[in-house]
Amino acid sequence: MNEFDLIARLTKNAPSNATVVAGPGDDCAVLDLGVPGQLVLFKTDAVVEGIHFDSKTPPEKIGHKALARCLSDIAAMAGAPTAAVVTIGLPRKFEPEFIEDIYEGLNELARRYGVAIAGGETTTNPEGILISVALLGLVKRDRHVLRSGAKAGDAIFVTGELGGSLSGKHLAFEPRLTEAQWLAENFKIHAMIDVSDGLAGDLRHVLKPSNAAAELLAAAIPISRQAKLAARAGSSAKPALLAALTDGEDFELLFTLASRQAVQLLDAWKKRFPNVRLSCIGKITAGSGITLRDKEGVRPLTVHGYTHFS
Amino acid sequence: MNEFDLIARLTKNAPSNATVVAGPGDDCAVLDLGVPGQLVLFKTDAVVEGIHFDSKTPPEKIGHKALARCLSDIAAMAGAPTAAVVTIGLPRKFEPEFIEDIYEGLNELARRYGVAIAGGETTTNPEGILISVALLGLVKRDRHVLRSGAKAGDAIFVTGELGGSLSGKHLAFEPRLTEAQWLAENFKIHAMIDVSDGLAGDLRHVLKPSNAAAELLAAAIPISRQAKLAARAGSSAKPALLAALTDGEDFELLFTLASRQAVQLLDAWKKRFPNVRLSCIGKITAGSGITLRDKEGVRPLTVHGYTHFS
Repeated sequence: MNEFDLIARLTKNAPSNATVVAGPGDDCAVLDLGVPGQLVLFKTDAVVEGIHFDSKTPPEKIGHKALARCLSDIAAMAGAPTAAVVTIGLPRKFEPEFIEDIYEGLNELARRYGVAIAGGETTTNPEGILISVALLGLVKRDRHVLRSGAKAGDAIFVTGELGGSLSGKHLAFEPRLTEAQWLAENFKIHAMIDVSDGLAGDLRHVLKPSNAAAELLAAAIPISRQAKLAARAGSSAKPALLAALTDGEDFELLFTLASRQAVQLLDAWKKRFPNVRLSCIGKITAGSGITLRDKEGVRPLTVHGYTHFS
Repeated sequence: MNEFDLIARLTKNAPSNATVVAGPGDDCAVLDLGVPGQLVLFKTDAVVEGIHFDSKTPPEKIGHKALARCLSDIAAMAGAPTAAVVTIGLPRKFEPEFIEDIYEGLNELARRYGVAIAGGETTTNPEGILISVALLGLVKRDRHVLRSGAKAGDAIFVTGELGGSLSGKHLAFEPRLTEAQWLAENFKIHAMIDVSDGLAGDLRHVLKPSNAAAELLAAAIPISRQAKLAARAGSSAKPALLAALTDGEDFELLFTLASRQAVQLLDAWKKRFPNVRLSCIGKITAGSGITLRDKEGVRPLTVHGYTHFS
């Protein structure tokens, strides 16, 4: 049983109530708590020693990553983050200075986006450090973007470059909060997700709830320098395109909008974010699954992204 | 360095913002998100295999405990719980049925209090199961009860019976949500906390932010049957009174109110909650620290409650 099958079983009987606008299955939960004009976004995520970082990772980067992952999910709903609470599990022996430095990295990122660290908990986690962050955000009532809104005929876009994140970016990435809020304010974004499990996997997380298919253009997929270098040096078992399609932890935005808006978006984006690449990588079609078009033709894309335990 | 010293260091530089009414240092964070007439409560907590439960604990009870601990913190602010998100860390090998049963226990408790399980995350935690719950609640703007409001002259009350929780109660306790909401609606509660680290430790968590001291009456402290049995059988190294003062995980409410309301409260409580014991265990005084009065006189109470790592 892989991670996604397990989640499906665990959330099948999840209790709900009248506050829930969107429950399990999207980047964040969306709640209506009665805030005039706004919905509340609610997200939790964790980083674990030996999985998301290792004993040699600089502590500030561990803290940065722990919060940045949650911020990236708030971005994927086009929301603005508000306040977080942090649970840290510590082995029986630890260096207090190391833990303080983890919080320094986390606090520094929080300050940059005006996020309050409003509380937390410490506990023992016998074999290694685990940091669980829960984050609240707000989004205008008509502006939250779900995964489920992709429509046949939409253009598919992705920010930045993909693949090779584990060579460093996964510890230092900047969540695309500013970009996502700008997108939702200026365009009608149909569906959005942050790319955390790899493009191929996360695109499927958009297609399935949208009841749609996608055709990707191989030549349009933005491959990172790290993925290209690794493929060229033979230090990666993956060709660069495959790395861009399946490597985890990119934390870029993947979104769709009506294709008639595509050129206008690309022009406006270039002016507003001249240093952030934006690529139109394909289109949403009827049906299910993903196909990849390259110079040899169109074929089904069978690769997936990263999953915990399988 | 013990848990509380570490927390003080980690929260010293915690970023804040205009939404924060009460930040780190109380049972929950209190946020003003603009909900008319209400404040938002925000709490996270975690249970860890080998610390809060073991490999023989029935899975439903693990899930129950994971959520009940957070509900107990919402109760301590006199709030009503709304929605939770759940992160579960799993070892590389696990039984899906066992994990489903954990969620069954958690879901059952959530349903009883109308709490939505609105999302979550699964991850790998190599050496054991860890469940981190983040919970939102709401409380009327003038009704949230902090730890810091105890005043000299207040009477100190505790619900239920104390000590010996690890013989079973810690896995099955009912969070005192109904009782706490009733208290805040009908009386002016000055300070409240849930007893999770032991009466002596948690009373200090009230006294310190309140700049106050307490005198406890040894004969008035409600000692659980489990603590008495363990002391009598010699199966506990602690006398029963010491167990009631220092054992962790009682999850009862400890609160103070003006002593002139004490008799009225005891009468009204008996009618409303005939099956839940309520004990007046002492009074708040000027100064700092705790003294214990018994038939031999008054002496400083030096014992503490449970702390993770010290």
